[in-house]
Amino acid sequence: MKHIKVVAFDADDTLWVNEPYFRKTEEAFYKLLEGYASLHDMERELLKTELDNIPLYGYGVKGFVLSMIEAAMRITNGTLTQETIAQIIVLGKAMLNEPIELLDGVEDVLKNLQGRYKLVVATKGDLLDQERKLRKSDLTKYFHHVEIMSEKDDANYLKLIRHLDIQPQELLMVGNSLKSDVLPVLNVGGYAIHVPYHITWVHETINHTVENKRLATVESIGEVLKFL
Amino acid sequence: MKHIKVVAFDADDTLWVNEPYFRKTEEAFYKLLEGYASLHDMERELLKTELDNIPLYGYGVKGFVLSMIEAAMRITNGTLTQETIAQIIVLGKAMLNEPIELLDGVEDVLKNLQGRYKLVVATKGDLLDQERKLRKSDLTKYFHHVEIMSEKDDANYLKLIRHLDIQPQELLMVGNSLKSDVLPVLNVGGYAIHVPYHITWVHETINHTVENKRLATVESIGEVLKFL
Repeated sequence: MKHIKVVAFDADDTLWVNEPYFRKTEEAFYKLLEGYASLHDMERELLKTELDNIPLYGYGVKGFVLSMIEAAMRITNGTLTQETIAQIIVLGKAMLNEPIELLDGVEDVLKNLQGRYKLVVATKGDLLDQERKLRKSDLTKYFHHVEIMSEKDDANYLKLIRHLDIQPQELLMVGNSLKSDVLPVLNVGGYAIHVPYHITWVHETINHTVENKRLATVESIGEVLKFL
Repeated sequence: MKHIKVVAFDADDTLWVNEPYFRKTEEAFYKLLEGYASLHDMERELLKTELDNIPLYGYGVKGFVLSMIEAAMRITNGTLTQETIAQIIVLGKAMLNEPIELLDGVEDVLKNLQGRYKLVVATKGDLLDQERKLRKSDLTKYFHHVEIMSEKDDANYLKLIRHLDIQPQELLMVGNSLKSDVLPVLNVGGYAIHVPYHITWVHETINHTVENKRLATVESIGEVLKFL
């Protein structure tokens, strides 16, 4: 990959742990509502509410908390107590205060690549929350640029490529989501390395395999160095 | 102002109506809770909750809705009904769906300046919501760059200046908030034109006057052209 000039990294579940915090919060949420509905029905209701709200709320913790409150009203069939709502709000604030836990090998990879490539973060979600996580991660020093997108689609990757003043084939994107980190980058002519994470939100999964000569899949982020 | 290369515009209450939608929503919120507390106490409780939550939630509608729910729990002293919460969520969704109403003269100013200066939007708030408002405004075509900041402070304006590859004195910022659009820009060496709006959120007000030879104050955005 001698033509690569910029290596862009997804953040959540690529640089640091994220999805497990959502899972932990969901479990606490189901526990709060225990007895009102089956776990299966609660899961279905929450996911449906989240997906319905994405066009309006986008990604991130605040929209997730609003969706939990809305789902809870339906799950309890109008008998939701104020105490439960207060606890949902506390769950959300706890998520925003979670510590940053870097994934294994991340810092070694960044150290190794720094100076040889322009390193970039390309993430989606809430602006303030992503900035806070990056600051807490102490990784800012490795990055030339941080791009926080409302949606990781072809158009936003093209905008990033133009902003970086490079050609699409000079971009390599490293991330855990085929849907957000791999497919749109391949679509616009870039390269991608997929580093699957052991948990993926169902909304980020795709139901087909991706084969492309500009895509590699590795088991852990350290293996990225074999290509660079 | 012959040295100006970039004219940056604040968005909310500079390009389009925003604060009146918050006021309208606050009034509906107080109406929902009528009888639980005096208007004065409700206003105080909501503002306090919002300010307490800004470090965690940042600016924007979603954080505002979460703060309304939290304040309502305290205002009703633990007797908040689910119906009221549902209505608060509806109020929030309505805000996110409000139409964009451009302020008088905005489009004329942008048309006049386009081609003569690099035009930029510099706004804070929720990423997705600000992008949506810009799209709805149909003003995107005038702008070279859109910067959405989590906070409009010295550091973020310096980042914008570096990103635009200009000197601080080549930036002119136009906006309605002394606190967010004027003071930090003057601090970092830029120029500012203050266009007061008839309503300002108390958190955006400052309790002193600002005098600086790099600041002008005008009554409406059309007057910006006298300086450019």
